[in-house]
Amino acid sequence: MLSPSLEDYLEEAYRLSTYNKEIRIKDVSECLNVSMPSVVKGLRKLNRLGYIVYQPYEKIELTDRGKIKGSFLVERNKILKDFVGMIGADCDIKQEAEAMEHYLTISTIKAIEKLVKFFTENEKLLLEFRNYKAESILDD
Amino acid sequence: MLSPSLEDYLEEAYRLSTYNKEIRIKDVSECLNVSMPSVVKGLRKLNRLGYIVYQPYEKIELTDRGKIKGSFLVERNKILKDFVGMIGADCDIKQEAEAMEHYLTISTIKAIEKLVKFFTENEKLLLEFRNYKAESILDD
Repeated sequence: MLSPSLEDYLEEAYRLSTYNKEIRIKDVSECLNVSMPSVVKGLRKLNRLGYIVYQPYEKIELTDRGKIKGSFLVERNKILKDFVGMIGADCDIKQEAEAMEHYLTISTIKAIEKLVKFFTENEKLLLEFRNYKAESILDD
Repeated sequence: MLSPSLEDYLEEAYRLSTYNKEIRIKDVSECLNVSMPSVVKGLRKLNRLGYIVYQPYEKIELTDRGKIKGSFLVERNKILKDFVGMIGADCDIKQEAEAMEHYLTISTIKAIEKLVKFFTENEKLLLEFRNYKAESILDD
């Protein structure tokens, strides 16, 4: 199992790979707001674990394993952001998804995904929940 | 802000205080499956921070501050257990709630609480979601 920070590096590397042609240490470092030496250390580990191919002064490439895992991590992050936004939590949605994403089992992520889809496909219901929430907050 | 492990000690101490008359190090240690020296170290910190009154060989008592925070921590854990159970995640509900509880803002906890209440008060809807989930899993 990858540590939370290695998951973050791989998630960001995968995200960058879908935008740009090259994954650059500087971009990973800026996106995650961590130092370049920390990113290099993390990338070396991901290289050893077979998720990326990383050699100094060479282009960073995701392996097939890295692409599968990276795609899962980006998707997981999206599901949690959608969920936090959907329930109307008054917080930094991006930060909240990032804080919780490492600690949930796949089963919970999948169940949350279904819940988000259920509400997305029943817009009236989502409105009903939002009204209920707004009213019960007034009662608190 | 308390660290995850200090939150766990305080949560368990509060929980024990609602069952028994005395909070014992041995019980906290057994409930959380951590060593007695670790619990002692944590309780010393909670004592310094004003959440409990802890002196070696004396009864452990929660301060008013400790009771308020402890009650919040127990309630937060319950909300998350209810949520994970409600969405039908196929995992150890207790473990899952414990893993995520330290990383959510109060706002998200409150929103999750409203969601659980919304479904609890609309049993038909919960059944509808469960059927939707079961069906869409078959489609996956």
